[in-house]
Formats: sequence, C-alpha cells, structure tokens
Amino acid sequence: MKKFNKIAIIGVGLIGGSVGLAVKRKGVAGEVIGVFRRNSTLSKALRCKAVDKATLDIKAGVKGADLIVLAAPVYSIPPLAREAIKYAKSGAVIIDVGSTKAWIVKEIEKMARASGSVFFVGSHPMAGSEHAGVEFAKKDLLEGAPCIVTRTINTNAKVLKRVVKFWASLGAKVKIMSPAMHDRSVSLISHLPHMVAFGLAGAVPIKDLSYAAEGFKDTTRVASSDPHLWADIFLTNRKEIIRAGKMFEKYYSNIIKAVSKGNYSETVKLLKAAKSKRDKFMYGKEG
Amino acid sequence: MKKFNKIAIIGVGLIGGSVGLAVKRKGVAGEVIGVFRRNSTLSKALRCKAVDKATLDIKAGVKGADLIVLAAPVYSIPPLAREAIKYAKSGAVIIDVGSTKAWIVKEIEKMARASGSVFFVGSHPMAGSEHAGVEFAKKDLLEGAPCIVTRTINTNAKVLKRVVKFWASLGAKVKIMSPAMHDRSVSLISHLPHMVAFGLAGAVPIKDLSYAAEGFKDTTRVASSDPHLWADIFLTNRKEIIRAGKMFEKYYSNIIKAVSKGNYSETVKLLKAAKSKRDKFMYGKEG
Repeated sequence: MKKFNKIAIIGVGLIGGSVGLAVKRKGVAGEVIGVFRRNSTLSKALRCKAVDKATLDIKAGVKGADLIVLAAPVYSIPPLAREAIKYAKSGAVIIDVGSTKAWIVKEIEKMARASGSVFFVGSHPMAGSEHAGVEFAKKDLLEGAPCIVTRTINTNAKVLKRVVKFWASLGAKVKIMSPAMHDRSVSLISHLPHMVAFGLAGAVPIKDLSYAAEGFKDTTRVASSDPHLWADIFLTNRKEIIRAGKMFEKYYSNIIKAVSKGNYSETVKLLKAAKSKRDKFMYGKEG
Repeated sequence: MKKFNKIAIIGVGLIGGSVGLAVKRKGVAGEVIGVFRRNSTLSKALRCKAVDKATLDIKAGVKGADLIVLAAPVYSIPPLAREAIKYAKSGAVIIDVGSTKAWIVKEIEKMARASGSVFFVGSHPMAGSEHAGVEFAKKDLLEGAPCIVTRTINTNAKVLKRVVKFWASLGAKVKIMSPAMHDRSVSLISHLPHMVAFGLAGAVPIKDLSYAAEGFKDTTRVASSDPHLWADIFLTNRKEIIRAGKMFEKYYSNIIKAVSKGNYSETVKLLKAAKSKRDKFMYGKEG
C-alpha cells in the first residue's frame, strides 16, 4: 500500500539513494523525486534509477511532497530544512537521516514550530559503508538495519507512527528514543569506532603497511569514510564522543598497563572480557 | 616437485592446519604428520584431512622429518622446540609460525646451536582470522598472504633459501627481515589493531550493542580472537607494542583535541590524512 503520494529526497548519495531504491522496490510511494546540488550526481542517480524524477530546484522538488527526506551531511541538514519548509505543502512530514540527533532535532523543531504547517521527526538509519555516493546505493541497504527514530515533547504522535511505519516498510528495525539518548548510544557504537579507526590509520607509517593483513584492513575500514561527513558528526556530538572516548581510553590503557607490567593473568582477563562481550553481540553467546 | 620427504606439524590449529592442507594440495611433501596434545583435535584434523597421519607422541611425530613446523601459541613454541630437537634427525629444519619473533628466535637459536645438528629459521605467515581451531583451516589461507622469514647472524643461508621457497610454494609473499625489524613493523600493523579492537570491545556497554552496525562489527572483529594467544603475543613483544601504542595515542588524541575545541578544519585535516593513507594502502591510490 502506498503510504505517501510523493516523496522528495534532498541529497541523493549512498543513504538517500538507498532510500529511493527501497521506496520504489517496496511500492511505498507514488513518486520519488530527488533534489540535487550538482548535475553530475543528478545524472548518476537517474542512471541507477534511485529516483523517478530529478531536479536541481528545491522548490520544484518539495512541491506537493507528503514526505521530505533530508539526506545530507549533518551540518547541511538544518539549512536544507529551512529551504524545504519554505516550499513544503501544509501537513508535510520532514525527516532526516543524520548520524547525530540532538543538534539537528533542536534546530529543525524550531523551524517547524515557527512555520506552523509542517511536522518534523528525526531519524537515523544505521546503515552505510565507507564509500560515499549514489553509485554505492543498494536497494537492500536498509534491510535488517537498525533505525533510530527520535521522540521529543514536540513530536506529534500520529506523525511519529507514520515515520516508524515508513522505515519499517523499508526493512529497518526501528527503535524510538530521545535525541540525547541516541547521541549517547551512537557515540559508543558508531562514532567511537570511527574515531579509533581514523586514529589507527593515521598513526601507522605507510612504509609498514605493505605487510598489513586482514586485521589492519578491517579495524581501519571505516577510516576510508568521507572526512567532511565525519567531521560534521564528531563536532555536532562532541560532548558524547569525548565521554565515549574516555571509556575506551580507560579499557585500552588498562590492557597496556597489564602488558607493560608483564601481568599475564590480568592481560588475559581483560582480553577475555572484551572477547566475550563481542561474541555475545555477534553470535548471541560467548564464542 | 617434493621439497621435503616428511613434514611434521606440531600444533594443528587454524594456521598449522592450513599449512598442512596447502602442503598436501601443492604436493610439497611426501608425507605430513601432525603432532597433537589432545585426542579430540587429532580426530578433527584427520577428518578435515589437514594431515596424512596424526600422533600424540612428539618423538614419533618428528622422527625422520626433514621439516618441523611449530604452530602453537608464542609461549609454547620454545618448549616444543626443545622437545622436537631431542628427537629430530640430523640436518632437520625447524620453523615456527609465531606472531612475535625476537624472543622466539633468540630462545630456539640457542637450542639449535647447542644441539649442533638442526637448523632453525623463524617465520610468520600473516594470515588467519578471529577464529581458532583446525575446523577453520583453509587450503588457500596462505595464498597471497604476507609471510615474514627472519634472518640473523646465525642463519644458514642455504636453509634460509629452502624455507623461503617452502612458504612461496604455499602461495605466500615472502619478505626477509631481522627479528627486531619484524617485531617493530608487526607491532604497528597487527598487534596494535588487536590492542585497539580489544580496548573498544571491552569499553562499550553491552546494552548499547543492540543497535551496533557494520562499523562496530568490523572495527572489533579481531577482538573475538583467542585471549591466551594474544596475551602471549602482547607480552613477548611488549616494548614494541607500547611504542606503537604511543604513536596511536598521539594521533587519536590529536583528533579528540581538535573535536573538543570545535576546530573543523583541523579535524578534517587529520581525518583526511588518515583516510588517504588507508586508501593508498587498499586501492593503491587516494580514494
């Protein structure tokens, strides 16, 4: 069943493009229109059939849309929301896909309230890869992926339900939480691993990399992600990331301490606790 | 062409088993015999056809072998070498597959010199996974994998050549270096990523893991490795690991500093340098 007549996706990269492909595959909308900044991306998105129609004009793009999806880097999302709200029809639902939520939600809720005619619900589909661009979009990227949808005192309950249904219809496993709770949790499970991976890839001298094997490749995979995208994320969630960093630094330096003291049993204890937690998460049991 | 009549593999787990499978596939030896500590592993190894024959008796295992491969955790390698040398035939070549080299090579070279009848060359095939056990052994695990072979003032040049050919015949890309150089390089590209992954998996509270996605999974993959195996590695290479750790801590804390100051351009600069290095390593160019 069509949940929306017209969906506008503003910013059609890896995530926006995957949303477009999934919406079309699942028949969730009558029409998907993509709004682009550059002609080159527009052509690419039409070639991959990520959207039905494409435009460089945000006004034409959002006109008459029931759902507007903001799929740009974090710092670009509020300015795009401001533009979209100008031309959105009354009653339009606006969502975003940004990786930090407290700042985005606060900014756009202000605008939505001021407009008095549109609804906003923050969301964060936790899918993607180290690659950027619509050419890496996949119709099943959201299948089984966690998607956090935020609720605040300003959230309209009916609209929240529609947004949850929207993400679920694309295959995502939806979880509702506050923007603050999102930012804390995600700082640990996503932002921190990126921080650590960037630190690792940055630290190792290039001359030693010729013997590097799978361990290095996987541990640093996300350090091949877009630096601007991640600078936005780190800076808009800095308080939580610094807190998460301290938790990492503590465990890491406890291992370093045990090793430098030559304390075998303490080293094994710390490695075992880390392994058993990861195994439980991966395999549902201690591996 | 058969390079050895009889190869004995002492310790037939993921690596030892993969060596056995590759030796048999490539026809490198007339016979592969596995030496085991436990009957259960012995049966498993015979079932996967990782060895032709199996024994729990190290004396029977190494008897008449031209090549003896020590494939146990680091701390177990020198004691096994001592046992093997007792029963090895004159002129036998002993190699190991340990992930640290300076300590192992020093210990076993002493024994080999004292015996006056066997040769030792340290090696480190850099392949494997977070899984342990012969059931994860693969006949092509060494195909294209880097393998570091060590040379010291005690190394016999002819024997070194045979060992290099042995690993190359199993598909590995061999590189010769000193044990000290090995330990420094590998501390950066392998031991440090493991340390960081254990630190990360250990730090994140289990309740937050339910929303974790691919980034967390990959960054922590190697934290599912065997804690005893890695405690051995960390403790026998502690000086280099602590040095590598300091290089990581510096880059990581520079990113944290830039983020906490809200310094966008500095953050982007650090992330870009990390990404470009990894991309160059992965794709041969900046991605």
